[in-house]
Amino acid sequence: MQVGFIGLGTMGKPMALRLLAAGHRLRVWNRSPGPMEELRRAGAEIAANAREAYRGEAVISMLSDDAALRQIVIDGEVLPKGGTATIHVNMATISPSFAKELAAFHAARGAPYVAAPVFGLPPVAAAGRLNIVAAGAADLIDRVQPLFDAMGQKTWRLGAEPSRANVVKIAGNFMIVAAIEAMAEATALVQAHGVPPADLFAVVTHAPFSCPPYQHYSAGMVARRYEPASFKVSLALKDLQLALDAAQAAHVPLPLGEIVRDSFVEAVGQGRDAHDASALAEVALRRAGVG
Amino acid sequence: MQVGFIGLGTMGKPMALRLLAAGHRLRVWNRSPGPMEELRRAGAEIAANAREAYRGEAVISMLSDDAALRQIVIDGEVLPKGGTATIHVNMATISPSFAKELAAFHAARGAPYVAAPVFGLPPVAAAGRLNIVAAGAADLIDRVQPLFDAMGQKTWRLGAEPSRANVVKIAGNFMIVAAIEAMAEATALVQAHGVPPADLFAVVTHAPFSCPPYQHYSAGMVARRYEPASFKVSLALKDLQLALDAAQAAHVPLPLGEIVRDSFVEAVGQGRDAHDASALAEVALRRAGVG
Amino acid sequence: MQVGFIGLGTMGKPMALRLLAAGHRLRVWNRSPGPMEELRRAGAEIAANAREAYRGEAVISMLSDDAALRQIVIDGEVLPKGGTATIHVNMATISPSFAKELAAFHAARGAPYVAAPVFGLPPVAAAGRLNIVAAGAADLIDRVQPLFDAMGQKTWRLGAEPSRANVVKIAGNFMIVAAIEAMAEATALVQAHGVPPADLFAVVTHAPFSCPPYQHYSAGMVARRYEPASFKVSLALKDLQLALDAAQAAHVPLPLGEIVRDSFVEAVGQGRDAHDASALAEVALRRAGVG
Amino acid sequence: MQVGFIGLGTMGKPMALRLLAAGHRLRVWNRSPGPMEELRRAGAEIAANAREAYRGEAVISMLSDDAALRQIVIDGEVLPKGGTATIHVNMATISPSFAKELAAFHAARGAPYVAAPVFGLPPVAAAGRLNIVAAGAADLIDRVQPLFDAMGQKTWRLGAEPSRANVVKIAGNFMIVAAIEAMAEATALVQAHGVPPADLFAVVTHAPFSCPPYQHYSAGMVARRYEPASFKVSLALKDLQLALDAAQAAHVPLPLGEIVRDSFVEAVGQGRDAHDASALAEVALRRAGVG
Repeated sequence: MQVGFIGLGTMGKPMALRLLAAGHRLRVWNRSPGPMEELRRAGAEIAANAREAYRGEAVISMLSDDAALRQIVIDGEVLPKGGTATIHVNMATISPSFAKELAAFHAARGAPYVAAPVFGLPPVAAAGRLNIVAAGAADLIDRVQPLFDAMGQKTWRLGAEPSRANVVKIAGNFMIVAAIEAMAEATALVQAHGVPPADLFAVVTHAPFSCPPYQHYSAGMVARRYEPASFKVSLALKDLQLALDAAQAAHVPLPLGEIVRDSFVEAVGQGRDAHDASALAEVALRRAGVG
Repeated sequence: MQVGFIGLGTMGKPMALRLLAAGHRLRVWNRSPGPMEELRRAGAEIAANAREAYRGEAVISMLSDDAALRQIVIDGEVLPKGGTATIHVNMATISPSFAKELAAFHAARGAPYVAAPVFGLPPVAAAGRLNIVAAGAADLIDRVQPLFDAMGQKTWRLGAEPSRANVVKIAGNFMIVAAIEAMAEATALVQAHGVPPADLFAVVTHAPFSCPPYQHYSAGMVARRYEPASFKVSLALKDLQLALDAAQAAHVPLPLGEIVRDSFVEAVGQGRDAHDASALAEVALRRAGVG
Repeated sequence: MQVGFIGLGTMGKPMALRLLAAGHRLRVWNRSPGPMEELRRAGAEIAANAREAYRGEAVISMLSDDAALRQIVIDGEVLPKGGTATIHVNMATISPSFAKELAAFHAARGAPYVAAPVFGLPPVAAAGRLNIVAAGAADLIDRVQPLFDAMGQKTWRLGAEPSRANVVKIAGNFMIVAAIEAMAEATALVQAHGVPPADLFAVVTHAPFSCPPYQHYSAGMVARRYEPASFKVSLALKDLQLALDAAQAAHVPLPLGEIVRDSFVEAVGQGRDAHDASALAEVALRRAGVG
Repeated sequence: MQVGFIGLGTMGKPMALRLLAAGHRLRVWNRSPGPMEELRRAGAEIAANAREAYRGEAVISMLSDDAALRQIVIDGEVLPKGGTATIHVNMATISPSFAKELAAFHAARGAPYVAAPVFGLPPVAAAGRLNIVAAGAADLIDRVQPLFDAMGQKTWRLGAEPSRANVVKIAGNFMIVAAIEAMAEATALVQAHGVPPADLFAVVTHAPFSCPPYQHYSAGMVARRYEPASFKVSLALKDLQLALDAAQAAHVPLPLGEIVRDSFVEAVGQGRDAHDASALAEVALRRAGVG
């Protein structure tokens, strides 16, 4: 397929490379030029701006947050005037409220739109093993399914209303940061009782927590190494804030989420913005005076 | 081996049956007679009291809490006078502080003692697939390893100090109840946004949370069925309280734990003591006014 | 003095009436016409729009939130072109970040600006007994001091940077809602132990909590009457959100604030938006199952 | 009146001195001899042990916690055999559950018993200005009212069931520590925004928080001096724990209380056990990275 790709960050780049490897033709654009060059060497065409990338059968956007997407897609007027057949597949994690605004924006301009946020860290993206949560008109998803197949191990279809996919994504990320905080507090608990966290995690990540979030983030806590980050504190806090905002908008108390936010805020206060989210262990250890 | 077994509750009974199935000879005792009869039919000998079960190469205890163990083992004077070669293997979840007291109590009476709490629900016990966290003198653990092999898929050795195994167990259970609360809050969040929790959990229990606690407890939340319970609210609250007590004893703040306790307390206030811990979803839904 | 007055809500109206009573000449404007008529009968002149009220020696604004102020003052272009001598005295509770933006906006247009949020409920405003927290250039505050004297019992000067007054105001309001939540939880605690909350509050509002927030809000909890509201749930939540936002902007964990927000969110979910903030007692009672 | 007095700590000593000053005859006892000597010089008789102090028309106990009271009153068998006319007035802060046990214990031994915990710090006790919360048989309270009049400014009668007074006392202390935490967090919030906490507290302790807990504890936070302590961190944590235990016993979630406990636990972890409770400000400042 002929595909545009906007946003070549830590997730976007390996996803785009998977598409190239699967034989799709890409026209890519990124705010900073570095990643574009790498994609060019892998066979992609470089677009002069976001508008020129918005062409072909589909255009995938993988930008960092609501604001970036708003600036480029809405304020930047990248949508072709008079409608288009290019399907916009937004795979970034955005707020449900902005997701609704975005869906309406595309509908009003005669531009097909699909939401398809993903679960999986960059190495998972590089392996084409993402889990893709897609929502939008079924025929649109059918048409971009070959792209999903190149990037993911499985596509979950969540109905016709795009924002539903975003709701699921932020709820899932909320569960991830809650798990990280639980591990962080458990780290302090066992450490304060003279048991190395490595002993705890060797057991519980075998059973019952034999799944990636526990296995991955506990490793950072055991090593007490938080760089390079796979999920930055600043990014985790941003995603958590999306969950808290969505909760507040729907009058849903999210007490666990707020506790976790405090820990992230405290981590930021310690200058750990760019550390991996597993650095919450340091916050917990310091609170307990066993750091 | 010739083994005593004290405590035939929802966990003890399937564990004892596994030992019989592996060819060990059991002398069992339980406070209420019902489960003893079932064990007798499976080939076990019935002891007249706990003291008579404290014989053979090892005696396993699987009682409900610190108080039950204290009443039977310490107040009940079950340890043979003048020392014994029978290894006491305590597999129940008890507090680290009581674990230390118990270890000292046995040492003072010349009675060998091993702590070996387990991870796994009753069906896992019935399948002999428990994860066993053992701590105590290495030669003692070597001697009872055939028993562990009959009950568990893996034994984790955590050193010579028995209470270390209990610290790991309560930290692990803390992580489990935190995961349940996270799922409960996520349930309310997506429900309030019009997305059925079943849609969320179908995705996230495949990836990234492809592990038993998420798969098991989310099923109850999706079905909104909390009976029969695999992990009762009252029991989960008791285990969480062990973690909170251990945290306070070591001056470790455990903010997530306290938030989760509030939810369990609220569940109890709703008359859900005997419901499964997944009933925290109902607490979260009611708070959000979307129950 | 000749004074403009924009915003005649539950606080603005009694404040404006105090100014009239003290002999000042008022030109007032309000979005809805009702309150203007009442002021007209008391001797005020009615402005055709906000811009016409922005005249004289000073103009006081008492609008409901950042958005209302932004719409009228910034988007509405009420500031006279080419600068003005009219001192804008903003007495509303706004966010510190918007306070800074507003100060810069006025400075850029040659318009003098003072921040002067207040402590005190409507009856206190009606009695001219507010506490006024003023920040801005000292000579500007000197000039509007006669207005403050007509509305308040005391003016606190917090320096030249206007946003400092707003920081103090939102921190104070945070303390108020925290006190309300503490009373609400205490209500549930004593009620569950068979002690009428009236008995608790009779004692503690005499000593040690012999001050208005405790005396006032506990009365609502004792009577279990939450209408009419003196401090609406929706307004309290908005003010609390200002504190949480300001906290997050400065990387300050505010765990108490987040707990209190959950209670307000839960109150909103119960349809109590327009109830008095003391209705948090109902949230606490329901959580405890003793409502 | 002829009065026994057991427990001459920071509260007991000034209370006993007030009784002497009012002309009552005292026989005092304390675990450590130092305070007894001071009382002797002021005119009191010294008892050889607690049992000898349990004589006369009334005996007042002012011990540090449940355990101390249990050891002396129950285990120490201080109650005269065969009943007594001496009214035991327990003025210490104890748990409602122990209060009930104590009332039953006295009733079973034919010993009259009144609960009368107090609000007020040591200087208030020294001035005879305590607020006394009394519960027990009305005629008993009538008989000891002259003692209350010597020690307090007001006696609040809470009915015939002694534990009710203890419930009110711990709920009141819960409100106090919640206020301290709110001030601590507000301290961090304004400090992080460049506003000295002194500026905040000058305003809000004048209005609306014109009452002792705010005025007293904020002074420590402003000065950042936490020694000598008027309400030690360790003692505040103990009192808070009584509230949390009472809450849990009655299935009452107390989310604010748990947040505050975390802060106290963190303060203990920083070696601040003996500091004043206002040291929570240091915990909040450190969390915010503005300490």
